Amino acid sequence: MQPSHIEHIGIAVTSLDESIPFFEKLLGTKCYAIEEVADQKVKTAFLRCGQTKIELLEPTSPESTIAAFIEKNNGKGGMHHIAFAVENLEGHLEEAKEAGIRLIDQAPRKGAEGLSIAFLHPKSTCGVLTELCEDKNKC
Amino acid sequence: MQPSHIEHIGIAVTSLDESIPFFEKLLGTKCYAIEEVADQKVKTAFLRCGQTKIELLEPTSPESTIAAFIEKNNGKGGMHHIAFAVENLEGHLEEAKEAGIRLIDQAPRKGAEGLSIAFLHPKSTCGVLTELCEDKNKC
Repeated sequence: MQPSHIEHIGIAVTSLDESIPFFEKLLGTKCYAIEEVADQKVKTAFLRCGQTKIELLEPTSPESTIAAFIEKNNGKGGMHHIAFAVENLEGHLEEAKEAGIRLIDQAPRKGAEGLSIAFLHPKSTCGVLTELCEDKNKC
Repeated sequence: MQPSHIEHIGIAVTSLDESIPFFEKLLGTKCYAIEEVADQKVKTAFLRCGQTKIELLEPTSPESTIAAFIEKNNGKGGMHHIAFAVENLEGHLEEAKEAGIRLIDQAPRKGAEGLSIAFLHPKSTCGVLTELCEDKNKC
């Protein structure tokens, strides 16, 4: 495995309306996209910082995993996951499986911004929810 | 404020010996430095991924803030902070203060790898412990 860079950092927030202005100020750049990811029950907002994006995640339903994260975190948002940019996501998942890393997603699925994504289980990744993602439009 | 990139992601771990081999496998690169930061009561290990470093933090004392983080997290490690690379750290701290952001460090102090660093308070930063850091050797 050798990701080229950190594609994004996922941050759970209770309100995009409240958090976007803060991150715009912190990063000195405007949020460039807001997107609802229906199957994850989240609304996402993106800002850039160098090679990496900050992905803010607001739950759109109490059943969202982001809502569960916020509840567990005493009602507060916080860092949720790290996503690494890879080429050949399927190959990376095979390699991870062979290395004994537990997968949440056995095969790539569609994530925000049209990326192919798959999550590794934090129990196998030192407590860090880890996403691998591939931008097939770039190939 | 306009950081140029994410300088590092700080990840609390219970054991460097156990977590370094995992991150070396995930990132396809060797840990390039291990350093003890005595005043923070942590031992740190660094790996690179694109513009950003992964900083693993193992507490060296139960009084370390990293030990407290792990205890609060049910004895597990996890994502601890994001550090943004800036120029003119003093100016950024002034700007943050003027914007009503609560500071943990009122003035820059020395962090790992000889960087000047300062933390913003997560209560002002959407629950994300945020570090600003400047590499004065690069100027």
